[in-house]
Amino acid sequence: MKPIAKLWLIMCLFVGVANAQAMDQLPSWQDTSTKENIIAFVARVTDSASEDFVAPSDRIAVFDNDGTLWSEQPMYFQLAFALDRVKALAAQHPEWKTQQPFKAALEGDLHALAASGEKGLLELVMATHGNTSTDEFSAIVTEWLATAQHPKFKRPYTDMVFQPMLELLAYLRANGFKTFIVSGGGIEFMRPWTERVYGIPPEQVIGSSIKTKYELRDDQPVLLRLPEIDFIDDKAGKPVGINTFIGKRPIAAFGNSDGDFEMLEWTTSGPGPRLGVLLHHDDAEREYAYDRKSPFGKLDRGLDEAGKRGWTVINMKEDWKVVYPFQNPEQ
Amino acid sequence: MKPIAKLWLIMCLFVGVANAQAMDQLPSWQDTSTKENIIAFVARVTDSASEDFVAPSDRIAVFDNDGTLWSEQPMYFQLAFALDRVKALAAQHPEWKTQQPFKAALEGDLHALAASGEKGLLELVMATHGNTSTDEFSAIVTEWLATAQHPKFKRPYTDMVFQPMLELLAYLRANGFKTFIVSGGGIEFMRPWTERVYGIPPEQVIGSSIKTKYELRDDQPVLLRLPEIDFIDDKAGKPVGINTFIGKRPIAAFGNSDGDFEMLEWTTSGPGPRLGVLLHHDDAEREYAYDRKSPFGKLDRGLDEAGKRGWTVINMKEDWKVVYPFQNPEQ
Repeated sequence: MKPIAKLWLIMCLFVGVANAQAMDQLPSWQDTSTKENIIAFVARVTDSASEDFVAPSDRIAVFDNDGTLWSEQPMYFQLAFALDRVKALAAQHPEWKTQQPFKAALEGDLHALAASGEKGLLELVMATHGNTSTDEFSAIVTEWLATAQHPKFKRPYTDMVFQPMLELLAYLRANGFKTFIVSGGGIEFMRPWTERVYGIPPEQVIGSSIKTKYELRDDQPVLLRLPEIDFIDDKAGKPVGINTFIGKRPIAAFGNSDGDFEMLEWTTSGPGPRLGVLLHHDDAEREYAYDRKSPFGKLDRGLDEAGKRGWTVINMKEDWKVVYPFQNPEQ
Repeated sequence: MKPIAKLWLIMCLFVGVANAQAMDQLPSWQDTSTKENIIAFVARVTDSASEDFVAPSDRIAVFDNDGTLWSEQPMYFQLAFALDRVKALAAQHPEWKTQQPFKAALEGDLHALAASGEKGLLELVMATHGNTSTDEFSAIVTEWLATAQHPKFKRPYTDMVFQPMLELLAYLRANGFKTFIVSGGGIEFMRPWTERVYGIPPEQVIGSSIKTKYELRDDQPVLLRLPEIDFIDDKAGKPVGINTFIGKRPIAAFGNSDGDFEMLEWTTSGPGPRLGVLLHHDDAEREYAYDRKSPFGKLDRGLDEAGKRGWTVINMKEDWKVVYPFQNPEQ
C-alpha cells in the first residue's frame, strides 16, 4: 500500500472512531425520553436544513448552579463557606459570641440560624464576604475549596458535581452552544473554579453580587468588596441578569427549583425552538430526595406547571446512570 | 502530477498566501512606533517560548467605544439619538415645549442643553430610553441607525467607525484575544449593532445601564426598561464593570479620554506584560481635533501621565493612513 493511501485509511479510521463516540456523548444518561428530548432539540437547532435551525451565535444555554450542576444539600455550599468564615473571623469579633445570627453560626445551631430569616443570612454574608479586595476574596474561596469537605460524602465540594450535567455541558458546546451559569449564588464565589470544574470561564458566570469600589492602596489600585448588596440573581432577577450580562434571550435553560421558574419561562416563551429542563431530586440513596418543602432548592410550582409548559423533567433516579464523577464505574 | 501531489501543492500555496497576509494585518496603520509597540506586545504574549506568554483564556482586551472605536463629535452619538427621540415623543408630551431640558432639545439649543448639566442630560436619557420593553428599545435603536445621519459627514453613524481600530480588533482576535467593549454609553444602545459592525457579540459589551423589571404582559413575559439608573460605566466605574462582567483583569486596554483613565490604570498595574493605549484626536481635517477642553471625550490627565505610566499614545494624524472605512483607498 502506498504511504498516502495508508495515511488516508488511518484518517478514515480516526473519523470512524470519532463518529462512534459522537453517537453517545451522554454516556451517564439512561436511554429514556428525557435524554431523547435533549438530543432531539439539539438536532433540530443544529440542522442547517431545518426551519428550526439556530445560528451558533444565538445558541445560548443557561444553567442554574446549586442543585443543577452540583448538590445543594444539606445546605447551600456557599452557606457552609459562610459558616466556616464566621469561625475563622470570630477572634476578631468577640461580640459575635452573643449576637445573632453569628452566635448560631458559631454554635452550629441551624434552627436558630434559620429563625434569623433572610435578614440574618444576608447579615452573615455581608460580614463574611465583604471588606476584602476581590483578589483576596478569590484566594479565600480557593483555599476553602481545597480543604473543606462535604459532611455526607467526605469529599471536596467541587467533587459534588453531577457527571451527567458535565457531559451535557460538553455536548452542548460541541454543538456550538455557549454555556452560561445563571445562579442565585455569589458571582465571585463561583468564578475562581467554574472554568476548571465545568469548563465555563468567569465571563460566562452570572450570579448575585455585592457592590465593589475602585480605590488606591499605597498607589496600587484594588477593587474593594463592600458589605452592600448589588444584585440578587434569583427568581425574576434571573431574566434581568441574563439580559444585563448576555443581552440575548437563551434558547435552552436548565434549573431545579422555583428560583429558576422565571428563567425557564423567559427562555421558553421566545419564538422558535426552545428547551426548558428541571432536575427533580428524587434519589435519596445516591444524592438527596427533596422538592416541595425543602428550605434549599424548593421545587413546587415548577413541578405543577412543567407539563403544561412543555418543560422536560429529569428524574435523577431513573434518568441518570451515575450522579457524581467519583461514582462513575468507567473511571 | 498525481492528484494528491497537486492538492498538496495547492494547499502549500494557500498557506503561503495566508502567511503573506499575516505580515500586515494592520494595513491602515503607518509604520510608526505606535504600531511597533502594539505588534511587539502581541508577539510577547503569544510566544509560548517567552516568559511573558499569556494563556489564551487570559488574553482579555477592553475597548472604550465613543472616541475610541467610533467618533464622538460634534456630540456623543447617543445624545443625538436622545434628541431625536425627544422630537419623536414630543406629541405625547406637550409640557416639554416649556420644560427644560426638553425645550432646549426640541429647539436644538445646545447651549441651554449644556447648561442643564449632568442632571438635565440624565433626565433626557430617562425620558427617552425608559418605559419600553428591551425588545422595543432594540428595534427603536436599529431603526434610528438605519435613517439618522452624521451632521458633518452625511453618513450613517455606524459608518463613523475607525478603520485602523477595526483592523486592530480583528488582529487581536486572530491572536487569541477576546475583545470587549467597556463604554460609558448605554449597553442596550450598543448591543443591537456591535456584532455586525465590530464583530463583538452582545455578551462582550459592557456599558452604562438603567434598571429593568421582569413582568407579564397578557401572559407573555417582557423586560421593562425603568426610568432609573442602574450603573454608570465611566471613570472608576469601568474597573468595577470589568470585574462584574468579565471577572478577570484585562491585559490590554484602549481608550481616548480621562473617562478611560482608571480602566487603563487597572489594566496596566497588574503583573506581567500589559498594554495601555490612548487615542489622541489631533486630526481636524479627516476627523476632529480636541483634547483638554472638549465637553465630549476630554483628555487631560491621560495626556500628562501617559509617558510616565508607559502608555502608548496614538496620534491620529501621523499614525493612521485612513480614519474611516469609506476613506479607505483600497475599498
